[in-house]
Amino acid sequence: MKLFDPLKIGAMTIANRIMVPAMVTHLCKEDGVVTQDTIDRYVRYAAGGAGLIIVEAMAIHQVKSGPLLRISDDKYIQGLREIAKAVHATSESKVVPQIIHFLKVARTGWRQTADMLSLEEIDQIVEQFGDAVLRAREAGFDGAELHSAHAYTLSSFLSRANPRTDEYGGQTLEGRLRLIGRVIENVRRKAGADFPLGVRFNVEEFIKNGYTVVDSKVIAERLAELGAAYISLSAGGKFEDAVHTPGQVLYPYNGYSGDRCMPGDWLPRGLHASLASEVKSHLVSEGHRVPIAAAGKLDAPQDAERMIAEGRADIVGVARGLLADPDWPIKVKRGELDRIVQCDYCNVCKALDGTHRTVICALWPQGSIQAPKDDPSVQAPQWPQADTSLTAIPRESRVELKWPKAPGAANYQVYRADEQGDPHMMDAVKVTFWVDNAVLGGHKYRYFVRPCAATGKPGQRSNTTIVDVPAPAYLPLR
Amino acid sequence: MKLFDPLKIGAMTIANRIMVPAMVTHLCKEDGVVTQDTIDRYVRYAAGGAGLIIVEAMAIHQVKSGPLLRISDDKYIQGLREIAKAVHATSESKVVPQIIHFLKVARTGWRQTADMLSLEEIDQIVEQFGDAVLRAREAGFDGAELHSAHAYTLSSFLSRANPRTDEYGGQTLEGRLRLIGRVIENVRRKAGADFPLGVRFNVEEFIKNGYTVVDSKVIAERLAELGAAYISLSAGGKFEDAVHTPGQVLYPYNGYSGDRCMPGDWLPRGLHASLASEVKSHLVSEGHRVPIAAAGKLDAPQDAERMIAEGRADIVGVARGLLADPDWPIKVKRGELDRIVQCDYCNVCKALDGTHRTVICALWPQGSIQAPKDDPSVQAPQWPQADTSLTAIPRESRVELKWPKAPGAANYQVYRADEQGDPHMMDAVKVTFWVDNAVLGGHKYRYFVRPCAATGKPGQRSNTTIVDVPAPAYLPLR
Repeated sequence: MKLFDPLKIGAMTIANRIMVPAMVTHLCKEDGVVTQDTIDRYVRYAAGGAGLIIVEAMAIHQVKSGPLLRISDDKYIQGLREIAKAVHATSESKVVPQIIHFLKVARTGWRQTADMLSLEEIDQIVEQFGDAVLRAREAGFDGAELHSAHAYTLSSFLSRANPRTDEYGGQTLEGRLRLIGRVIENVRRKAGADFPLGVRFNVEEFIKNGYTVVDSKVIAERLAELGAAYISLSAGGKFEDAVHTPGQVLYPYNGYSGDRCMPGDWLPRGLHASLASEVKSHLVSEGHRVPIAAAGKLDAPQDAERMIAEGRADIVGVARGLLADPDWPIKVKRGELDRIVQCDYCNVCKALDGTHRTVICALWPQGSIQAPKDDPSVQAPQWPQADTSLTAIPRESRVELKWPKAPGAANYQVYRADEQGDPHMMDAVKVTFWVDNAVLGGHKYRYFVRPCAATGKPGQRSNTTIVDVPAPAYLPLR
Repeated sequence: MKLFDPLKIGAMTIANRIMVPAMVTHLCKEDGVVTQDTIDRYVRYAAGGAGLIIVEAMAIHQVKSGPLLRISDDKYIQGLREIAKAVHATSESKVVPQIIHFLKVARTGWRQTADMLSLEEIDQIVEQFGDAVLRAREAGFDGAELHSAHAYTLSSFLSRANPRTDEYGGQTLEGRLRLIGRVIENVRRKAGADFPLGVRFNVEEFIKNGYTVVDSKVIAERLAELGAAYISLSAGGKFEDAVHTPGQVLYPYNGYSGDRCMPGDWLPRGLHASLASEVKSHLVSEGHRVPIAAAGKLDAPQDAERMIAEGRADIVGVARGLLADPDWPIKVKRGELDRIVQCDYCNVCKALDGTHRTVICALWPQGSIQAPKDDPSVQAPQWPQADTSLTAIPRESRVELKWPKAPGAANYQVYRADEQGDPHMMDAVKVTFWVDNAVLGGHKYRYFVRPCAATGKPGQRSNTTIVDVPAPAYLPLR
């Protein structure tokens, strides 16, 4: 598989094209110091074999913001070094911290916007980014990534919604590009032009008057000119359409743009893949070879492989899929696809992030704060009796499935196929029933369920049940 | 060109694949009766040669709603018949009215939602649709189109945001499909199953928790089963993200979903083409041959042709492009591409719609309420002097263009090309200057301007000016 071809990214070479994008863990405390839990989280990804691990965003400044890592002072280097050291001691995974600056938010719903910053404050941000990346280098990371996506400062300047009217102003493309340009210049001067510096930014903002791929192609071109080691494309996650809950600070992932950023189960797979491809081909046509990382529900191994094999991206970011199962890379490499703990996009992780609680996967065993380790001695779950276990009954506009408890099962993957089609995993649940609300009357569906151990080790499929959903009364007319 | 292949749509055959989608004109008065201006608008499209003309939405009920056509009583048939007759007398264009039901809106921002309708009111809507389509048939139209897109009743039931909890409820796909299903059944019973009935619905809602192409593939399948003569795909235009202006009723086209519905100049061309293709290929794979109409900035003739030639859609809807120039079909057929009055997506038409004023194109001559007729005796505009006219000066982050007035020019098309690339029309303006805010410092751009008569007849291109935009200070570091 092309997914396992190594890739040179400036001074570092990654062993495969699989990236863990930055995911907040809330495993540290308000002091922003790395904890053993933080280290364990990244070691787990390293053990799973991801080529490139991006460590959750760490702030270059000291604004209050819940349990968030910091890189705003030399005193944080020691803790950060422990992450880099532990990852490197575990596997050949490369590890890169995401470096962030964000503006202030208040529980009233007020938020600081780009136009409230003085030129002096902007100069300070430029310097703080340079200092932070130098600290990342001193901590032994393989590179650093600037967070210029979503609702944060660099992204707010890049945005078409940037309300400034000066030389950093939103009216012109160059105005929007000025801050990220100055930051990259400062970082390369302070931390060294040989230290791989990636940039993550939005391929589309997905807000009213936001920018689209028309602009992101040109933004990527500038980043390539500035010497970005890689470009990682995210989407959405903006404050502009966030829904304010009284008494809470705005959460930029709960509006439509937030849905695009962390798409739930109702959004299509690979929903931004074609946008990433457009950026990639624009860069190629302009003679730039900077690697492009694509993301957005690309955890189906065949989707990830296709992106790389077709040259539509150079790296595939799999966030929630690797949270659910950090061993995804190893399992895909070994062809053990049926052993993957598959993310069902329930977004419990997102809800935890939104309320500043420790981010875990709902598919992990109750109480775990890390993914379970693959343990060959774990027994596969067993059905209590063969063949006759799964029942599926059509009710008014829905199909109700139930099945017996399979000892040893941590969860059950529910599969559905159309009459002729291939089965798709519809959900993964810890209970022994599931309701399908998305059936079309007058059609046949096939269902089966697979019990899985917490490590992903699967039991036998249940029997396959075929359901003939009655057509609605108005249909037979034809 | 495949764009000019005829297509059978049930009992009607259209001469080419070019459709004028429904566009509100506000050329009638509050009484909802067809005026001569209304007739003239559609005759103009017929003269231009569009294969299928959809007449602006007309209401099946008597709720107050500004200057909007009505089909809610037999008394409206006479006026509507005049449209059908006049179109048929002009060309072989087929003409189909769009039939709409909408819920109430108030200036306070309050709006009636789907869950406020009683079952009796739903039954009444079902009957009213049937009666309305029968009237459309009696008026001599070639078919009818149900408006099940955007912010209107049928679409609100189809939506994943449908808040009802009964058998029409949003929890299940069948619940969401029930109203449109019952409406189609009633229409076919009352107006005849042989009367071509198209349905327009959203390929994606583009709102938080809205449905996506995952659902629209299945919705289209049901519509095919129900005997839809064609399926026309729009997008967005929802109340859920509309921005309320105090004292005004909510306008469903001013949020992000509204931007997607009537995309301005900053959104990509063909922005929903791949979604339409997905629906089309799903239908083909399920054995349905119902024609699919795609829309969304598809007015570039090569884009429209590609959609048809590649089988990605069967019909191309060009709304604002045909508003700007109803002769687009004839001109494309004759290969007179440089005579097209090209829409620049300024969205003046949208702003007029949003304030209930007569919808015109900003490129038409001042004061016109219809597109000017192509007149061979019109002289092409002439530059006052050759070669040295256009100047382009790089300023801080922008390039300022100016040129002399060309007698006979109604507007000027501004073209830009990257150093190596093909020129693209950036804008069409009535003044003699233009500012390019989207240049990348350190790059060369080529510009020229073309003066056009109001009918589209072009003058000579201006000289081409090459501008070397200075790189920003932070860039040369590399």
